[in-house]
Amino acid sequence: MLPRGRPRALGAAALLLVLILIGFFLFGGDLECERREQGGPGSFPCSLTPRVPPDGDLPADHGGCNRSDCVPLRPLPPKCELLHVAMVCAGHNTSRDVITLVKSMLFFRKNPLHLHLVTDAVARNILETLFHTWMVPAVRVSFYDAEELKPQVSWIPNKHYSGLYGLMKLVLPGALPPALARVIVLDTDVTFASDIAELWALFAYFSDEQVIGLVENQSDWYLGNLWRNHRPWPALGRGFNTGVILLRLDRLRQAGWEQMWKLTATQELLTLPATSLADQVWRSLLGGGGQAQGQGEMAVSAQDIFNAIIKRHPGLVLPLPCIWNVQLSDHTLAERCYSEAADLKVIHWNSPKKLRVKNKHVEFFRNLHLTFLEYNGNLLRRELFGCPSPPPPEAEQLQRALAHLSEEDTCLEFRQQQLTVHRVHITFLPHEPPPPRPHDVTLVAQLSMDRLQMLEALCRHWPGPMSLALYLTDAEAQQFLHFVEASAVLSARQDVAYHVVYREGSLYPINQLRNVAMAQALTPYVFLSDIDLLPSYSLYDYLRASIEQLELGSGRKAALVVPAFETLHYHFSFPNSKAELLALLDAGSLYTFRSHEWPQGYAPTDYARWREAQAPYRVQWAADYEPYVVVPRDCPRYDPRFVGFGWNKVAHIVELDAQEYELLVLPEAFTIHLPHTPSPDISRFRSRPTYRDCLQILKDEFHQDLSRHYGAAALKYLTALQQPEAPQG
Amino acid sequence: MLPRGRPRALGAAALLLVLILIGFFLFGGDLECERREQGGPGSFPCSLTPRVPPDGDLPADHGGCNRSDCVPLRPLPPKCELLHVAMVCAGHNTSRDVITLVKSMLFFRKNPLHLHLVTDAVARNILETLFHTWMVPAVRVSFYDAEELKPQVSWIPNKHYSGLYGLMKLVLPGALPPALARVIVLDTDVTFASDIAELWALFAYFSDEQVIGLVENQSDWYLGNLWRNHRPWPALGRGFNTGVILLRLDRLRQAGWEQMWKLTATQELLTLPATSLADQVWRSLLGGGGQAQGQGEMAVSAQDIFNAIIKRHPGLVLPLPCIWNVQLSDHTLAERCYSEAADLKVIHWNSPKKLRVKNKHVEFFRNLHLTFLEYNGNLLRRELFGCPSPPPPEAEQLQRALAHLSEEDTCLEFRQQQLTVHRVHITFLPHEPPPPRPHDVTLVAQLSMDRLQMLEALCRHWPGPMSLALYLTDAEAQQFLHFVEASAVLSARQDVAYHVVYREGSLYPINQLRNVAMAQALTPYVFLSDIDLLPSYSLYDYLRASIEQLELGSGRKAALVVPAFETLHYHFSFPNSKAELLALLDAGSLYTFRSHEWPQGYAPTDYARWREAQAPYRVQWAADYEPYVVVPRDCPRYDPRFVGFGWNKVAHIVELDAQEYELLVLPEAFTIHLPHTPSPDISRFRSRPTYRDCLQILKDEFHQDLSRHYGAAALKYLTALQQPEAPQG
Repeated sequence: MLPRGRPRALGAAALLLVLILIGFFLFGGDLECERREQGGPGSFPCSLTPRVPPDGDLPADHGGCNRSDCVPLRPLPPKCELLHVAMVCAGHNTSRDVITLVKSMLFFRKNPLHLHLVTDAVARNILETLFHTWMVPAVRVSFYDAEELKPQVSWIPNKHYSGLYGLMKLVLPGALPPALARVIVLDTDVTFASDIAELWALFAYFSDEQVIGLVENQSDWYLGNLWRNHRPWPALGRGFNTGVILLRLDRLRQAGWEQMWKLTATQELLTLPATSLADQVWRSLLGGGGQAQGQGEMAVSAQDIFNAIIKRHPGLVLPLPCIWNVQLSDHTLAERCYSEAADLKVIHWNSPKKLRVKNKHVEFFRNLHLTFLEYNGNLLRRELFGCPSPPPPEAEQLQRALAHLSEEDTCLEFRQQQLTVHRVHITFLPHEPPPPRPHDVTLVAQLSMDRLQMLEALCRHWPGPMSLALYLTDAEAQQFLHFVEASAVLSARQDVAYHVVYREGSLYPINQLRNVAMAQALTPYVFLSDIDLLPSYSLYDYLRASIEQLELGSGRKAALVVPAFETLHYHFSFPNSKAELLALLDAGSLYTFRSHEWPQGYAPTDYARWREAQAPYRVQWAADYEPYVVVPRDCPRYDPRFVGFGWNKVAHIVELDAQEYELLVLPEAFTIHLPHTPSPDISRFRSRPTYRDCLQILKDEFHQDLSRHYGAAALKYLTALQQPEAPQG
Repeated sequence: MLPRGRPRALGAAALLLVLILIGFFLFGGDLECERREQGGPGSFPCSLTPRVPPDGDLPADHGGCNRSDCVPLRPLPPKCELLHVAMVCAGHNTSRDVITLVKSMLFFRKNPLHLHLVTDAVARNILETLFHTWMVPAVRVSFYDAEELKPQVSWIPNKHYSGLYGLMKLVLPGALPPALARVIVLDTDVTFASDIAELWALFAYFSDEQVIGLVENQSDWYLGNLWRNHRPWPALGRGFNTGVILLRLDRLRQAGWEQMWKLTATQELLTLPATSLADQVWRSLLGGGGQAQGQGEMAVSAQDIFNAIIKRHPGLVLPLPCIWNVQLSDHTLAERCYSEAADLKVIHWNSPKKLRVKNKHVEFFRNLHLTFLEYNGNLLRRELFGCPSPPPPEAEQLQRALAHLSEEDTCLEFRQQQLTVHRVHITFLPHEPPPPRPHDVTLVAQLSMDRLQMLEALCRHWPGPMSLALYLTDAEAQQFLHFVEASAVLSARQDVAYHVVYREGSLYPINQLRNVAMAQALTPYVFLSDIDLLPSYSLYDYLRASIEQLELGSGRKAALVVPAFETLHYHFSFPNSKAELLALLDAGSLYTFRSHEWPQGYAPTDYARWREAQAPYRVQWAADYEPYVVVPRDCPRYDPRFVGFGWNKVAHIVELDAQEYELLVLPEAFTIHLPHTPSPDISRFRSRPTYRDCLQILKDEFHQDLSRHYGAAALKYLTALQQPEAPQG
């Protein structure tokens, strides 16, 4: 393989020349290149190394690379190598950030990934559900309990409890599995604009001594000259930003990392004055403070401690090219980095203002970020060609089930929709669980974008906890977020849990949505309502009192019926009492619900008796009865085979009756349905000829399953079954 | 720079070893690599060259690359080099495809682009408007008239007229500017999954003789052994696919390309039998037929002719790596290409089934394609850092105007919305312009997703031409497309033009939408309606007759008023005549429009007089009057400052009155407003405290502009102006 024959030196020279020319020709415009005289492990290519001159000024060619003295450097790890990524995540808002970050990572990745997530209980609950339902091939997720790690960092002074989470980056070498040698650690406020494998490949440049890869800070915070007596923690020049870290865990453990950082932190804390509040505001605006966690900024950040250690042991750090952590705080110096680069790799929103940060190119960066905020995460469920990446077991099961469906099946579309596993993001917005109360009731409902305007009214009518499933695209979820932020009524409520179920398929999966909302209700009872119904103002209190009086807690199996009415007018003044309601009913301004189109759905409630009733009364199940009911949280789920519109509530009431729930009508309870334009979905599917045929098939199958499950007791449902009526919404 | 000192040979050997090791370590998994013994221009790296063995079998390692004998090859063109791309595009559907392709290209690109589009009149109209309003920095678009090029290819036999467009790829060397030396030619059914600059960089591998870069066909069509007497056009082995072409235009011109292809085509046509219809079906399913254009498949495709030329002159072609044109026809052999590649570059949907093609990995490819179908094109309006890419002049003007706005302005959000330039995709779906008729009327309206269900009813009520502006996101535009395809009523109508205006900003730009729809109306008169109104069944005929009788064509300046009513019930049977309407009105089932909330909006129509009227009667303008009117197409535009909800129609009627249009009420005309849930937008903005303040400011400014424009004549509007009333929708 080596050049042989006489003119060896000449051959070598020629070869070198050819290589230089190829490099010049092919890679001239590329940023990632290496100044040959600097090459080799332990130092970084060309001027991409953040030099740290004493005056803190970046060299003019920072981020650029002079063509003629470069050879190409575009490392990638071996195909299919498993890459490890660690993040610390706590709370509802940070969980949303993590998902956006992961979407950007998955969009560009071509390698299998293992995510190591240090989480509080809230984030774990959200992310576990999300990844479980997302079913992305070749992504493994491990969770680590932040609670267990707290004692290791809680001695460090912190203004806010939440600051502790930021410090947990320090304890990763001990917290992650001992066999794990390398990991990329990310703040949750970064966005990828490239394949993370390129970042992973930079591990190859670590010298034997180096253990941490970091990008220089793009703010002047650590220079300590922002004002008189400005005394930041010690750092080399501008210091390093810890939004993106390459960690050699194996070496850190060997080098006694735990002692090292604890000693450094202790010593610095003894000599440094307490940081003032004004300092905190400044540092956060300048992005000098490490990752912001929730509302509070840290008094001491992991970044401070990392920098103090590096100041003492400069040999530990491999400076990384600035494009791997472009920091978008106010007054950032990031432009010196990206103005030369066609190719940004990672954007870091390290300002508390996030997307509202002032930066003349912020539009560019915002567009990148919005791309992944709005990106349809379902599309990331794609295999990695050429890597053995067995799909998650659930995904395989699903594939088999889908493969079993016949193309000729009248109900093909319905069955596909039933089998669809929707990505679910529970508690999309901050939420406080209600205090445990034995008779408390959660209102459960589901909606899509076209019913958002019902939320404020619903909040005014129902002061108690709610669990709402929202069927949205990723882009709509962002619109929903802004909708809530813009509403004083909605922002004020912490007891409304919004669960986003991501859209997929052509039919509205109404019962799957109801089941998601019901499963997330945290009170012992649930009021199973619909989004177009407004409960009477007193219903929440009245239901809790009724539950107590009827002693449902002591094992009495009952479903409390809330009589439903409807108005056909869209300007409507809501009755304040049963008396007012009856007056409107008599005046013809209100009707009993669906009395014209679907009388059997509500007639068994016996509205005539209800008019006069002073006490709860029992009614019997009848075919097609579908009242709105209050039931224990652990009641049967809705049958997910009923998708789109039709028979979805009826089947649930049958199931309750089969399980011998008493149906008790409450004399003072009522709820009123408001008019709305039929959704395009309803119009479309009702007009299809196969729709009724298929609904009949699904009903038959439902009855077969009932017989199988309840035996002879289920016979009454079959005999009660009449000719199919108009499907109901 | 060369290694000096005694052990020069040793140094050279060591250097080589290091380079091999670096290559192995860093680039081992990468596809784009070069077998050193094959390197150099004119041949293609490693086994990526589609070898063409006589048996037509692909080598086992096709698409792969043995690590140990590779050195890295990741060419990119110089930073900021302008790349040229040519496409042939005809008709409505292909225009949509082009936009998706361009979105994928822009997503990954880092270079300025110049698009050369050969178009028919329809595509030019669509794409010119689209690119003009898209305002993407560093993208230039040139149009070439397909009509002018037709004579050069129309002598080639074609089953369908549309087949001619496919053949136009042959005449590009003559059609494109003489100074243009290189161009990438693309079929409209490809999707990029990488930076097009990497494709452009492959020009560097052309030998002096080579003029065309192509990927091998991934079907067996040209092998000619599919059935007895299967006689495809001649080709080398499997032949080459022309979905992605690198053309050295300069050399083609020098080499006398025009004569070459015409001679080859003529000779082959003389010797080949006519292709049977069955052949056509097969070849199209196998993706052997070049680009499908509209309904028809070509009898002879540009691909046939390219292949016949290459068979005669194999030295002209540089075979390209298969990843640059992964062909997803049925029975494709593409898997042999992509199963080895982590990194697909271009996907080619060369089957008439497009996304419904059968392929076990189709889900993967569909997800890539859907990514760009749904991608928010607004996010591609991003500058290229480090390249001088002056934004289009309109964009600069816009930036200046936006910069002038004050953060303290009460109306900031309104003014930003007014200044927003929305991407506009006119005639999103196939549309046939109405035949020119002197009294014809187009119904003009605008809507967003939540009103799609109105379209079918509207079609039933209005049998004439319509011009509708739809305010949608890119993802919603796809849902809309499926909605129309699923509706027999809508699919049957070719005279309804749908213009998609892409969403941007927080307020509904109602008057901008109306102006788009109005500008695209092609009849001499327009009926300016709203989406929630259904016209009487006879209105279309009646309006045309009235226009004729009133002799509006002869310069009489009139706006014909169509009296509006409303129902508050959402189950409603539409009156078949004025008599029926009056009966419903008397019965209290119908009201005159907005008589409760906004009487001054419609009262000047004088409904009492209308009851009895037998002939058109003139009414006077009054403050806040906002009737639905029929006007000549060239009437004043709507004032775009009124965004969101309020005073948007009122201002237009003022403008008509100021320009001395007579207001003539038609005695038999009527239209009825159906109830709907208020949209979230309305609820949100009506509840804002600044909303009314700002509306008042905008009204004041409107009146100032009126005075400036019409002088003393505009005084009456100012004096008539009363206290601000509730804003109307």
